[in-house]
Amino acid sequence: MKQRIGIIGAGVVGTAVGVILNAKGYEITGVYDHKTESTQKLVERIGCPAHLDPCQVSRSADIVFITTNDTAIQEVVEIVAAGGAFRAGQTVVHMSGAETADILGRAREFGARALSVHPLQSFANLDGAQENLAGSVFSIEGDEEARATGEAIVEALGGQYFFIAKDAKPLYHAGACVASNYLVTLLDLGIKLLAEAGIPEDRAGQALMPLVNGTLRNIGKIGIPAALTGPIARGDIATVNKHLDRMRQMAPELVQLYAVLGLYTAPLAEAKGSIRGPIREELEEIFRRELGRGATTS
Amino acid sequence: MKQRIGIIGAGVVGTAVGVILNAKGYEITGVYDHKTESTQKLVERIGCPAHLDPCQVSRSADIVFITTNDTAIQEVVEIVAAGGAFRAGQTVVHMSGAETADILGRAREFGARALSVHPLQSFANLDGAQENLAGSVFSIEGDEEARATGEAIVEALGGQYFFIAKDAKPLYHAGACVASNYLVTLLDLGIKLLAEAGIPEDRAGQALMPLVNGTLRNIGKIGIPAALTGPIARGDIATVNKHLDRMRQMAPELVQLYAVLGLYTAPLAEAKGSIRGPIREELEEIFRRELGRGATTS
Repeated sequence: MKQRIGIIGAGVVGTAVGVILNAKGYEITGVYDHKTESTQKLVERIGCPAHLDPCQVSRSADIVFITTNDTAIQEVVEIVAAGGAFRAGQTVVHMSGAETADILGRAREFGARALSVHPLQSFANLDGAQENLAGSVFSIEGDEEARATGEAIVEALGGQYFFIAKDAKPLYHAGACVASNYLVTLLDLGIKLLAEAGIPEDRAGQALMPLVNGTLRNIGKIGIPAALTGPIARGDIATVNKHLDRMRQMAPELVQLYAVLGLYTAPLAEAKGSIRGPIREELEEIFRRELGRGATTS
Repeated sequence: MKQRIGIIGAGVVGTAVGVILNAKGYEITGVYDHKTESTQKLVERIGCPAHLDPCQVSRSADIVFITTNDTAIQEVVEIVAAGGAFRAGQTVVHMSGAETADILGRAREFGARALSVHPLQSFANLDGAQENLAGSVFSIEGDEEARATGEAIVEALGGQYFFIAKDAKPLYHAGACVASNYLVTLLDLGIKLLAEAGIPEDRAGQALMPLVNGTLRNIGKIGIPAALTGPIARGDIATVNKHLDRMRQMAPELVQLYAVLGLYTAPLAEAKGSIRGPIREELEEIFRRELGRGATTS
């Protein structure tokens, strides 16, 4: 028989998890969010009982998801522990990338098992969350005896998984944030440069999407560094200088980011084998000089 | 009747263009590459005449593509001009992002028209080039009277286009390089952080792809800055500090790039409306301090 699911925290992630697990035949035995409206929305979507406090949710369920903001997880655990509402045999799960299962430590005092199950995915809104979850890769970390439960959860959510050590989570999470959050920053930089070149921002965004998707396809097929193209990969110093000259005039506030990214890209070009050491050094020197210039004028 | 096409420079881009235009019913009347092997490969693929010098190609064609490396375009133009092989009514096209049509200036002396037609796309190898070209957005720049020819070329290649001013090309090209080349750098940074966290590099790359694609879908649907998620978007300073602390210990060579990207991401979070000015300032202060630390110890 499938285990009964409780959800504390009905934001984007908690709601997506509730909707998907419900559709997969799991019984959702209780939902609570400190915003009544969020509780109500999820309850209406899946026809499960609403609860007035997190302790009730925990008492009703075999697997308790604490899908609040990262900063509220600990507080919720304290409340449920203070209410004596954890029990042996239960699994308590959070889905934070940065926190480990240890933040659920008080649940262990009751004999419950603690697990962190983190999807490598970006949840900007609810529709996107459900669409994006399937096919995502999850990390599982926490109590050995709860690993099978973690695997079953990921399978139900349509993902793949690997296990990760507790100590590794902060660096792992930093890597995920770099790839996702800073991708938004990178595209914003590209769009701003196209906008400075006279292309309206919405048109610029549309024009860059096929390029970005093409680059990702290349990365998927031939990997890094082989997928690196462009002036740094070619050792085309004249073009790099042309970029920097024009940016200094037209978009000086963007030069630092362009130069630091260039500094990290030059060794990739050498690793690809499309430039040699002396050209890599010359490029690095150009980028370092640019950064030094910024430091003295700002 | 469709115009006759000549191709000088049968690398990845020249070959992709030749193959696609040939498939669209254009007659390819001549191909030349300074590497005989490259000429031969394209000739075999599309069954068109090989030529032994660029002048012959130009004499055979109404539209001459000079799809050599950027650095060789000028030299090719000089050779064809010296051979008296341009003529009035012809259109000469290069596909460089950084160069303008002016680099083809000597062709104009013969009454030919000069055009730069640049695909916002990344060409890491030939298979990828043909797949990626369709659906790309192109910029067209150059002689007014040749614009219709530029439009016809882009249409045949399956793309969309906009016109761009000569002076705007360097910034435009910088923006394209940022979005494409630095995306490779960004993913490399993410993979290195996951690798430091103990996840094998190939597994790390696979795990990040659904995340990156999910983030791109979010950007496509709700735009920037709305698609920004993660600790900076949430104003979660504890998590940012945790990332930096661990990176300083485990991957100090990556801290500078993480911090500079963070510095540009904080204002995006404020623009999204998910953090306010004082939190944005606190985040910026953390990243600036980190950069200052790097400057004094390196």
